[in-house]
Amino acid sequence: MPSPREASPELQTAMAEIASGINTTIGTLLPETSEPENRLIEAMRYATLGGGKRIRPFLVCESAKLFGVDHLRAKRVAAALEFVHCYSLVHDDLPAMDNADLRRGMPSVHKKYDDATAILAGDALLTYAFEILAEPETHEDPHVRCELTSLLAKSSGLNGMVGGQMLDLIGEKSKFDVGQISRLQRMKTGMLMSFACEAGAILGKASEQQRKALRNYAFDLGLAFQVTDDILDVEGDPAETGKEQGKDTKAGKSTFVTTMGSEQAKMRAEMLVHQAIRHLHVFDSRASTLKAFAMYVLERRK
Amino acid sequence: MPSPREASPELQTAMAEIASGINTTIGTLLPETSEPENRLIEAMRYATLGGGKRIRPFLVCESAKLFGVDHLRAKRVAAALEFVHCYSLVHDDLPAMDNADLRRGMPSVHKKYDDATAILAGDALLTYAFEILAEPETHEDPHVRCELTSLLAKSSGLNGMVGGQMLDLIGEKSKFDVGQISRLQRMKTGMLMSFACEAGAILGKASEQQRKALRNYAFDLGLAFQVTDDILDVEGDPAETGKEQGKDTKAGKSTFVTTMGSEQAKMRAEMLVHQAIRHLHVFDSRASTLKAFAMYVLERRK
Repeated sequence: MPSPREASPELQTAMAEIASGINTTIGTLLPETSEPENRLIEAMRYATLGGGKRIRPFLVCESAKLFGVDHLRAKRVAAALEFVHCYSLVHDDLPAMDNADLRRGMPSVHKKYDDATAILAGDALLTYAFEILAEPETHEDPHVRCELTSLLAKSSGLNGMVGGQMLDLIGEKSKFDVGQISRLQRMKTGMLMSFACEAGAILGKASEQQRKALRNYAFDLGLAFQVTDDILDVEGDPAETGKEQGKDTKAGKSTFVTTMGSEQAKMRAEMLVHQAIRHLHVFDSRASTLKAFAMYVLERRK
Repeated sequence: MPSPREASPELQTAMAEIASGINTTIGTLLPETSEPENRLIEAMRYATLGGGKRIRPFLVCESAKLFGVDHLRAKRVAAALEFVHCYSLVHDDLPAMDNADLRRGMPSVHKKYDDATAILAGDALLTYAFEILAEPETHEDPHVRCELTSLLAKSSGLNGMVGGQMLDLIGEKSKFDVGQISRLQRMKTGMLMSFACEAGAILGKASEQQRKALRNYAFDLGLAFQVTDDILDVEGDPAETGKEQGKDTKAGKSTFVTTMGSEQAKMRAEMLVHQAIRHLHVFDSRASTLKAFAMYVLERRK
């Protein structure tokens, strides 16, 4: 198995193309206005157009491609999902939560605007995500739209992302074991990753077998992503990761590295990535980009 | 025209029945668990089960009744709408927003728990509202579910409630005229009131004429409600309203009373309520409870 230290040129091109397409879609979905409340839209644009790897949109679009789904539809779903991801970052960065002044090297939304605007911009992004999914432009079949809406809500709500954030806050004050950390991460980030891949299958009216393959791929990949995140927290080069080294460890958080050690964590990540790739065998060579992406998650330096 | 100073016994019974039914529905939708993140569910229950007039659920259920909609379905939609209303109160009360320590005489959610939990509980309530609407239990026709989801999102998002809250924050620092206040209130509270009435029509697959009648009723009623709120802010008895007298005026907010004076505001409210009632003529005597409710809005003391 080759061991690329960063994404292959083909994968880089595929990721860059989707990132660029998503930026255009987001810009179109959030046009500025001359109304006095335009400040809200400015903050929503600032929260969603400031870069980022666009991993979730990439997974939506690549999964949808397996079933020949129209690009515009996939990009609408990808944008809705990215809105949910970005709203969670905006609220997470607030003084009452992580109190982060910077996000991707730029002032976080509440620093650029103010706390009230950041709260409202997050609320509006979350709300808009569901509006986008429920509109006929996303898919002509309302069953598909309802299924997307319901799955996104489940993945991001009290039994998904928000529940995981609550656990994360509790975890700052109590020690979690590997099982509890896995559950926390599954809720906090894994379920939205699973939504990304499953959304492609829902849009493409995939068979249950295909849908399950993508769900399992995303499940393992999401966990591998978190394990490598924890490894990068300890071993990453701040010049590449853009994050202070050992931030989570210093904050006293239980991570995969603090509970199982660096070597075990690396083996776990490798095992998960290979397992993720095996789930894609049902698509033969068509899923080569998703397979390459899984290898990138394992080998990434940022 | 009789001038009851409070709701008639029939209206009181109808409102109490719906409020009690909604409490049961909300309790069922938010069961407590033994998971560590149960704190989040506790906060969501605290935010939604602490009383309140349940005006929006009342409007959903009474509108749905006009078309013989199944009660369980109407109550699910009513609960989803109440979740959106309650999440907005939780976020509004935060120190970064209105900084309110009390809500209905009890500690607000961030005082009872903490700011982070209040932010997350609000986020989870908003998300859950859309999950409820998108699920088949709400209606067997996915067109209906998509329409409800889309309309709730539009009414509560950047061009609705959240946009109105942004305007409200801006309004604290600049003077608004009557037109601007009307637009602000329409966005901040009116659109959710309209949703309440229109949701009943959507659930009941009402004709466009019936739907329009309910939308117009709610539009006028919502504005009347805000005008009477502003009058009560100045003239209400704190023992009845549960609010400090002149709170908005002291905060320097532009209200209907500060811009048009108390007498003009009373005439405006009366005009709006009678106009609201006229829209219901299309339903003959079947809409008598909604008509009585409009009169109550005009005459209420709290």
